[in-house]
Amino acid sequence: MKIQPNSKLLMIGDSITDCGRGRPIGEAAFNALGDGYVNLINAFLTASSPAARLRIINMGVGGNTVRDLAARWNSDVIALNPEWLSIMIGINDVWRQFDARLQTETHISLEEYGHTLEGLIRTVQPQLRGLVLMTPFFIEPNRSDPMRAMMDQYGAVVRELAQRYGAILVDTQAAFDSVLTTLHPMALANDRVHPNTTGHMILARAFLKAVDYVW
Amino acid sequence: MKIQPNSKLLMIGDSITDCGRGRPIGEAAFNALGDGYVNLINAFLTASSPAARLRIINMGVGGNTVRDLAARWNSDVIALNPEWLSIMIGINDVWRQFDARLQTETHISLEEYGHTLEGLIRTVQPQLRGLVLMTPFFIEPNRSDPMRAMMDQYGAVVRELAQRYGAILVDTQAAFDSVLTTLHPMALANDRVHPNTTGHMILARAFLKAVDYVW
Amino acid sequence: MKIQPNSKLLMIGDSITDCGRGRPIGEAAFNALGDGYVNLINAFLTASSPAARLRIINMGVGGNTVRDLAARWNSDVIALNPEWLSIMIGINDVWRQFDARLQTETHISLEEYGHTLEGLIRTVQPQLRGLVLMTPFFIEPNRSDPMRAMMDQYGAVVRELAQRYGAILVDTQAAFDSVLTTLHPMALANDRVHPNTTGHMILARAFLKAVDYVW
Amino acid sequence: MKIQPNSKLLMIGDSITDCGRGRPIGEAAFNALGDGYVNLINAFLTASSPAARLRIINMGVGGNTVRDLAARWNSDVIALNPEWLSIMIGINDVWRQFDARLQTETHISLEEYGHTLEGLIRTVQPQLRGLVLMTPFFIEPNRSDPMRAMMDQYGAVVRELAQRYGAILVDTQAAFDSVLTTLHPMALANDRVHPNTTGHMILARAFLKAVDYVW
Amino acid sequence: MKIQPNSKLLMIGDSITDCGRGRPIGEAAFNALGDGYVNLINAFLTASSPAARLRIINMGVGGNTVRDLAARWNSDVIALNPEWLSIMIGINDVWRQFDARLQTETHISLEEYGHTLEGLIRTVQPQLRGLVLMTPFFIEPNRSDPMRAMMDQYGAVVRELAQRYGAILVDTQAAFDSVLTTLHPMALANDRVHPNTTGHMILARAFLKAVDYVW
Amino acid sequence: MKIQPNSKLLMIGDSITDCGRGRPIGEAAFNALGDGYVNLINAFLTASSPAARLRIINMGVGGNTVRDLAARWNSDVIALNPEWLSIMIGINDVWRQFDARLQTETHISLEEYGHTLEGLIRTVQPQLRGLVLMTPFFIEPNRSDPMRAMMDQYGAVVRELAQRYGAILVDTQAAFDSVLTTLHPMALANDRVHPNTTGHMILARAFLKAVDYVW
Amino acid sequence: MKIQPNSKLLMIGDSITDCGRGRPIGEAAFNALGDGYVNLINAFLTASSPAARLRIINMGVGGNTVRDLAARWNSDVIALNPEWLSIMIGINDVWRQFDARLQTETHISLEEYGHTLEGLIRTVQPQLRGLVLMTPFFIEPNRSDPMRAMMDQYGAVVRELAQRYGAILVDTQAAFDSVLTTLHPMALANDRVHPNTTGHMILARAFLKAVDYVW
Amino acid sequence: MKIQPNSKLLMIGDSITDCGRGRPIGEAAFNALGDGYVNLINAFLTASSPAARLRIINMGVGGNTVRDLAARWNSDVIALNPEWLSIMIGINDVWRQFDARLQTETHISLEEYGHTLEGLIRTVQPQLRGLVLMTPFFIEPNRSDPMRAMMDQYGAVVRELAQRYGAILVDTQAAFDSVLTTLHPMALANDRVHPNTTGHMILARAFLKAVDYVW
Repeated sequence: MKIQPNSKLLMIGDSITDCGRGRPIGEAAFNALGDGYVNLINAFLTASSPAARLRIINMGVGGNTVRDLAARWNSDVIALNPEWLSIMIGINDVWRQFDARLQTETHISLEEYGHTLEGLIRTVQPQLRGLVLMTPFFIEPNRSDPMRAMMDQYGAVVRELAQRYGAILVDTQAAFDSVLTTLHPMALANDRVHPNTTGHMILARAFLKAVDYVW
Repeated sequence: MKIQPNSKLLMIGDSITDCGRGRPIGEAAFNALGDGYVNLINAFLTASSPAARLRIINMGVGGNTVRDLAARWNSDVIALNPEWLSIMIGINDVWRQFDARLQTETHISLEEYGHTLEGLIRTVQPQLRGLVLMTPFFIEPNRSDPMRAMMDQYGAVVRELAQRYGAILVDTQAAFDSVLTTLHPMALANDRVHPNTTGHMILARAFLKAVDYVW
Repeated sequence: MKIQPNSKLLMIGDSITDCGRGRPIGEAAFNALGDGYVNLINAFLTASSPAARLRIINMGVGGNTVRDLAARWNSDVIALNPEWLSIMIGINDVWRQFDARLQTETHISLEEYGHTLEGLIRTVQPQLRGLVLMTPFFIEPNRSDPMRAMMDQYGAVVRELAQRYGAILVDTQAAFDSVLTTLHPMALANDRVHPNTTGHMILARAFLKAVDYVW
Repeated sequence: MKIQPNSKLLMIGDSITDCGRGRPIGEAAFNALGDGYVNLINAFLTASSPAARLRIINMGVGGNTVRDLAARWNSDVIALNPEWLSIMIGINDVWRQFDARLQTETHISLEEYGHTLEGLIRTVQPQLRGLVLMTPFFIEPNRSDPMRAMMDQYGAVVRELAQRYGAILVDTQAAFDSVLTTLHPMALANDRVHPNTTGHMILARAFLKAVDYVW
Repeated sequence: MKIQPNSKLLMIGDSITDCGRGRPIGEAAFNALGDGYVNLINAFLTASSPAARLRIINMGVGGNTVRDLAARWNSDVIALNPEWLSIMIGINDVWRQFDARLQTETHISLEEYGHTLEGLIRTVQPQLRGLVLMTPFFIEPNRSDPMRAMMDQYGAVVRELAQRYGAILVDTQAAFDSVLTTLHPMALANDRVHPNTTGHMILARAFLKAVDYVW
Repeated sequence: MKIQPNSKLLMIGDSITDCGRGRPIGEAAFNALGDGYVNLINAFLTASSPAARLRIINMGVGGNTVRDLAARWNSDVIALNPEWLSIMIGINDVWRQFDARLQTETHISLEEYGHTLEGLIRTVQPQLRGLVLMTPFFIEPNRSDPMRAMMDQYGAVVRELAQRYGAILVDTQAAFDSVLTTLHPMALANDRVHPNTTGHMILARAFLKAVDYVW
Repeated sequence: MKIQPNSKLLMIGDSITDCGRGRPIGEAAFNALGDGYVNLINAFLTASSPAARLRIINMGVGGNTVRDLAARWNSDVIALNPEWLSIMIGINDVWRQFDARLQTETHISLEEYGHTLEGLIRTVQPQLRGLVLMTPFFIEPNRSDPMRAMMDQYGAVVRELAQRYGAILVDTQAAFDSVLTTLHPMALANDRVHPNTTGHMILARAFLKAVDYVW
Repeated sequence: MKIQPNSKLLMIGDSITDCGRGRPIGEAAFNALGDGYVNLINAFLTASSPAARLRIINMGVGGNTVRDLAARWNSDVIALNPEWLSIMIGINDVWRQFDARLQTETHISLEEYGHTLEGLIRTVQPQLRGLVLMTPFFIEPNRSDPMRAMMDQYGAVVRELAQRYGAILVDTQAAFDSVLTTLHPMALANDRVHPNTTGHMILARAFLKAVDYVW
């Protein structure tokens, strides 16, 4: 697996990452990783490779956009000195443009999104051994749905940044899309955003495959 | 307005109708109409025509399919002797086929749906002065979404039954569709099923227009 | 309709306006408008004219008098830069003189009421495109009831200020009076102050008619 | 005082009597008399005449009309063998005609009221040493208010029955009226029905004066 | 009655006075007088003499000793400018010596008690129109019980101070003693300190008699 | 110790025994012995003699009198086949005569008490290996207090029955009395009935000494 | 994978299986599978093979022993007609002998365990397409710990029955043992019985490997 | 007994000591000693020697290590001026190394443990009349269990410090070990750390024997 033994992996994001994690730090020692994909990844790694001593920290915060990440980047990422970092952000950046269409001050434009995310990467990368970028997603198979279409644009930015900075890419949207040929979104998430355990397993598997984890 | 003064109007359906109504009878006297479209219709009618003395009873039950309506038709409709009746059912009949795809015993086929609904209408119509049939809906503008496509089929059954039995038709799906050209579903209902107050206002307006209510 | 597309309308007042709104800002984006007339007005406008993009903000606070409005006028009105503003205040200014008759420091005299309200109007009007003044009300048909009589005096001040400053007047008392010829106050509000949904619909209709809203 | 030492006094009525009493029997032994006039009367009698050993039982039930009293008369009055009985009923009999105007099956007509109440009296009087009839009341000084006007009619029935059956009359409406020349109803009860402690003290005093209690 | 119309009467003390009053000020306007003797006195005075406009403020705090009163005397008494003041303190001063016998820092000696209470009186008396001193009490008929014996000593201090400063004395212990010839303490207060409604009625009557209230 | 290894000891009584035990059977296996003297006795015996395998069952019920014990004797004692039995009953039998003085139907006379208790003993003794009778108590050093005086009479009955039937006597009143020469009742129980942990330790010690437990 | 497409797999057991599942049937449709290994297995299978349409039902009940399974075998297994069945039982059968050592009626001997479990298998096997037997486990690496030693005996019975009846064996104890060479039990379960997510992942993996699931 | 009459004994430690004590000071006067061994010791001493006037203060805090004790030593020990002090610390110092193996910053090495504990002793001893050192414990009879083995090392440090500084030693591990020859750990504590009442009684007895308490 790409992540070296004894590494500390910090995973940051929004409510999909957060999932009820402990505060101020969400960490496995006290079962405080929440109950989403971060918790599943930790369970996988500890169950199959306990000797690797991988330490996972969940720093997701519900409702966050990339602008919120920037505001807490120093305290919540830099200061914690992770060797590995994963970022999954952008869902709220897009969502607010549809469920809060008149509150334009809460909207994060594609430009601000890309610019800000790139800035965060540049700040942190020098101190990392590995970086994982996870695309945002919308559990909606209809690519012409305006919110799905916009989410795909934001996902493209992540894909591009992964390439530019040599990060590992986790294409979460693709992972969901392959299941959506069989399942209706209602079988994964009523609001097409917050997945049930099956949806989090899809995320965890996509992450683990991207880091060459062997089952 | 088509509904005669001094009438009792019973409104039956699923969670969209229920909306936290009082038990066992949901009635305005004690603010027990719930907080959905039934409550709004009552407020409209009382505010603008208090002298008409229209009595509204909410008999919605969350999660109900047409099969559930049949099981409680005698106690919850016939025995209450309404002069007017509105029915909005079918959302769960369709939904279970997508969010509980393997639990086939909870699915209501198009055939069972039409057959059962027609039976209910035939049983009650002789004692009514007026019948209102409201189509089920799915707040999804993409007509090729499988759940929307299936909902349209169930709605067509309602449209046909309204014509066959001379009932007033409320095409709730059409009412939502006209707003969805401007608004994304996320602005009305996260799960595209349970609307916010704006969505209930759309339902109430559609109903009131169908009965020739004058604002 | 008089309110221009893309306007931000701020509605301020006491508990009738508040109705459990979100804090610190009550706004429709997250269903935080409370469940009173403000919420109904928003639902009306969004349901029938979604393209007008009217943004409504509820800044009501339960128990407020005009003296309380003055204390938070800068932070809760001026700083939020509304294009339109509605004010409904005065019920507590009068009420305290009857339910807290000995706590005279909580009473707002007619003079203080008029003087303060006029000051608030003068401060904010230059930055507004439109101002709506709603009279306070008491759901009591007996005009010789002392509290109703006093409320009418405070309402007269509002009527006069509306004329002097060219504001749109919403005569809420008149709206209730026309229904009270048919309904006893007990059918609208046990305490003759806090209305049920029918009462809030009466307020919403009065407001919408005053701004030439077309149903 | 008219009530003999060692008597058991049962007080029955609606929510004004109930006031959160214990179930199934509300009795002072375990502080289960509720917190209304019944509790105050017990406190008065025990504090000033503990040796008289007067036992008070509260059998009020919120929402009751005289029709409800009739349905539980055997179990809740006859079977408990009181020596003295007080009855205060009628507020809901009238109230429903105003706050539930369309639910006519909940209205108790003046005729049914008088007829039923008289029947109850005739059934129980033979086993009593003393009977106290308390009029219903409405804390509304305006005698032309329709609900007050109707309450006065029901009160007149009580007055007449008291005379016909030699019962002690407690004119609660008169007791409130004398205070209402100074206080607005808002100082006693927001809904003009459920009094604060001052209102319950007015009821207790009226009762105690009627039975010649010496302070 | 000795208390002049339009007076403000502030009543201070410990949990017997407090009884769940509102914070920061316990006042009748909003039913915040608690449910003890203060509330009863207010109900008496308002019910029988509403025109006298007596304003009562409850400033009791559970657990207080005279040392605690001194610490909040400025904010809770002086700053509120009462015309009349009642003080009932001393129960905890004594009690702690029996239920917290080893925590001697919580004990208030007879000397500190008298000295502090006198200081409070001297500070406030110049601004008062009337002062009422209520003795502390212990609902224990056995005068040789050590806690009763000590309470009698503290009560004697109050009696002496009332005489020295011309205050009205309310001998609450005597009021309870006269009832205890008939009733066991268990009929008034399980812990012989916190009375039920009957016990509070005893306190209210003792106070009202002392100020020549006419029933 | 008198209780043989491998015995089952059932302890029955009122709230002092109950202390929040599990239902329907209060047993140590699942920490369901409550938190009173029964729990302490179990902890003592298990901690110092785990090999003795003494099984303790708590069948106390709050509020019980000897009349209540009789009503559940078959299901709660006989059917459970204990080898040893302890009974502590009588506090409520006496208490009701003081805190519910007018509810005479709840009073258990000395005669009924003795007669009933003796009947229970005669029914169960043939199947027992050992019987322990614990006197009721009142944590009141003043022997002329009427409730204490009456409790002593009931205790005398227990003492006499212990002698007549060869039972082991636990004189709980004497155990408390010896401590009350130093401590005021307030240091053990605010209501002089329900002890704190120190009081339960006194009960546990008295029991253990009576069965010759060696520390 | 050994489990055929379109199969219904019922998983029965004790609290490790239950994990807060829905009642009366725990099924994935409404996220009612609990949050233990059953839920993880369902997430795995749905995420990677949605087209296989495997339906999983969780019928675990906390605290159950094999004796409890027998009592509900007809209603909870036979009547639900599963094609596949997994059983994991025995932990409480052993545990009670250590934490409730004196309550021998709750102990399930090795003989009763084997006999009963075999009877259940024989009753259900004819109607199954596949049977999975999971050993009970104790997360204790010290094989000479008496509870671990006894658990190993019960596990041996399961191993033997799997062979005799051609069932698929899941050796959960072996799965835990291999991790316990690296991790202390405290890293998996404070009480060495109820695992955290890592422990449930170990169970899920062991199950999936046994049925030849391909990741 | 070694502890002199009128002494104040402060007991500090982790959750075993804390057990839900009052805040900020846990003291017997208001039943705030928690429900663990500290409470039992107080009950013993007060029940059998009330005249000795021993005052016990519980300053345990759940989760504490010796590093946490150092951080609050001044405010929680020195400033409270105890005559006697007991310390039981070390369980979490060891535990974290097993249940939070990757969070090495929470681990307290044997060296830091001994060094810090000795520093605390040296700081406080000059102002004490007596010091009691209680070893940490792990309710695990298998001495080769890694956590037990490590706990024994930390216990050895306590034993050595007790000798070096002339403190009274309470060997809690030995006390548990003698019972564990008969009982499985599951009969005392599910997690082998937090004991039930029997376990706390074992701790209380060990303490009391060490200070020569006579039963």
